[in-house]
Amino acid sequence: MSTTIEVYRGLVEERLADWTKALPDDPLYHRITYLLGLPAKRVRPVATLMGCALFGGDPRAALDQALGIELFHNFTLMHDDIMDQAPLRRGQPTVHTKWNTAGAILSGDALLVKAYRLMGTHPRVLPVFSQRALEVCEGQEMDMGFETSDAVGVDDYLEMIRLKTAVLLAGALEVGALRGGASEQDAQQLGRFGEHLGLAFQLRDDLLDAFGDPEKVGKRPGGDLRAGKKTFLLIRGLERSRELDRTELQEELMKGPEVRDVQRMLRVLEELGVPADTEAEVDRHHRSAIAALDAVPAAEENKTPLRALADLLLQRAH
Amino acid sequence: MSTTIEVYRGLVEERLADWTKALPDDPLYHRITYLLGLPAKRVRPVATLMGCALFGGDPRAALDQALGIELFHNFTLMHDDIMDQAPLRRGQPTVHTKWNTAGAILSGDALLVKAYRLMGTHPRVLPVFSQRALEVCEGQEMDMGFETSDAVGVDDYLEMIRLKTAVLLAGALEVGALRGGASEQDAQQLGRFGEHLGLAFQLRDDLLDAFGDPEKVGKRPGGDLRAGKKTFLLIRGLERSRELDRTELQEELMKGPEVRDVQRMLRVLEELGVPADTEAEVDRHHRSAIAALDAVPAAEENKTPLRALADLLLQRAH
Repeated sequence: MSTTIEVYRGLVEERLADWTKALPDDPLYHRITYLLGLPAKRVRPVATLMGCALFGGDPRAALDQALGIELFHNFTLMHDDIMDQAPLRRGQPTVHTKWNTAGAILSGDALLVKAYRLMGTHPRVLPVFSQRALEVCEGQEMDMGFETSDAVGVDDYLEMIRLKTAVLLAGALEVGALRGGASEQDAQQLGRFGEHLGLAFQLRDDLLDAFGDPEKVGKRPGGDLRAGKKTFLLIRGLERSRELDRTELQEELMKGPEVRDVQRMLRVLEELGVPADTEAEVDRHHRSAIAALDAVPAAEENKTPLRALADLLLQRAH
Repeated sequence: MSTTIEVYRGLVEERLADWTKALPDDPLYHRITYLLGLPAKRVRPVATLMGCALFGGDPRAALDQALGIELFHNFTLMHDDIMDQAPLRRGQPTVHTKWNTAGAILSGDALLVKAYRLMGTHPRVLPVFSQRALEVCEGQEMDMGFETSDAVGVDDYLEMIRLKTAVLLAGALEVGALRGGASEQDAQQLGRFGEHLGLAFQLRDDLLDAFGDPEKVGKRPGGDLRAGKKTFLLIRGLERSRELDRTELQEELMKGPEVRDVQRMLRVLEELGVPADTEAEVDRHHRSAIAALDAVPAAEENKTPLRALADLLLQRAH
């Protein structure tokens, strides 16, 4: 474990605690404090501080923006949980379950306003943040559209997770870089590292949901498959099935989730070589991420924490 | 009808049409275009242009901010309609009815981001906008809390509509004033005009809902009373009833909305002098609004359009 990650996480948690303590005693803010209080890795705000330090800035100077990124992330969680009708988040009731939908909509809105407030009025930071925020909305729209579409290909899926997941990590790094004095061009280059890293992370997460060690993953494997969720694995599996005239996955998808044979789907995906395809895609984006970081014109020793962050996210041994 | 209002409204509609035309062809934006396309008076963006011109600025210089205010207003409409479970808006299906709740949440979120984008990075404009935006959320929270609270007084109600309705008109004027070169202090003074005007407008709206001419109001009178909604009239009526040991209003509120005798409630409110009390409160805020405008250090001839806007909102004869 990199000490820089721990130090930065400590700074973020401290700033976050101060911030929540100053909130008015009102249900609007109780819901926000509740969600922010659930255990979290704080990867995005830590990335913001790293982006700032990479270009020689004092990471503490980017703490407002780091907190803004974390608030934005929690805004997306609060609203996504309503849209996805998710009862639990990190093992705890979601905000709309614990309170109600109206409250979760409104507290999410307030979180977004608070995030903008913390971003400040830096003429270079705000447009980047708004652009990334809009892309996250577009990614969620694309994801919702997938539920009713029969023609989702692997490239559609990659574009969806790029927008819904990866661009926010990119934005977190870019905002930090700009606060640290980077040029737009150098911030964008660091953003590419974040985008590929985010893609690799999400693909690995899809893989773990199906094939991860249940003890390490902390949930019953195959939840996405049972729900019929169009992840990289299922989309790739259906493509391979068409090529080889195999019908098992389609058969299982025709059934309701309760009677769906997830073990059979997992076996078929193995036989079709889908886990290996997914691993290859994870590796490809991991390598692209590292190449993007290598190409950032900054001191090599300043890049060490970012390499450690990539290892942490992809759970690679050091 | 003031020609300035019409000219400014034309500028706003034109800019809005250009803006919606440039949106990507995606359901995320179709919902936004739909809501923005419903007939509307565009009072808030017109107020922004007036605020700019009041201090000698070219109103066209504030068109981005005016549009941003209108987008923010429509964001609140889209989300409020979900929270209030409203089936219709201006006689047309609400966004969550025409599409679905998830879509209305997400398109509302995108509207808020787009509003911020248009506000720009002016270091004086953004903090004012964020402050007003947060107050609107706090007002909606207060309004929702009223539904389950038995101890709502007249002052609570006035504070709620100040936050939920009046501060956005204030913010629209302030943002325009700042774009027109006003000092923070002068912008705040103009904001006071907007706040009192917004309060007078909402109180008058409450009054019309109960006692308006059905043909002019365009809906069956007493809708708020039937729903048991805690408006100024009902709260004041319950206060007066307690003072005079009258129980008719409480009796009707104990009944379900379908069997509630709205005509009886209207008679009782008349007997208690509530319409006159409400008129007096409207007048009080109208006078405060005019006094606030009088005190703004700007050329008298530049104030004429703002006086016409007040007349329009309160439907006073010229």
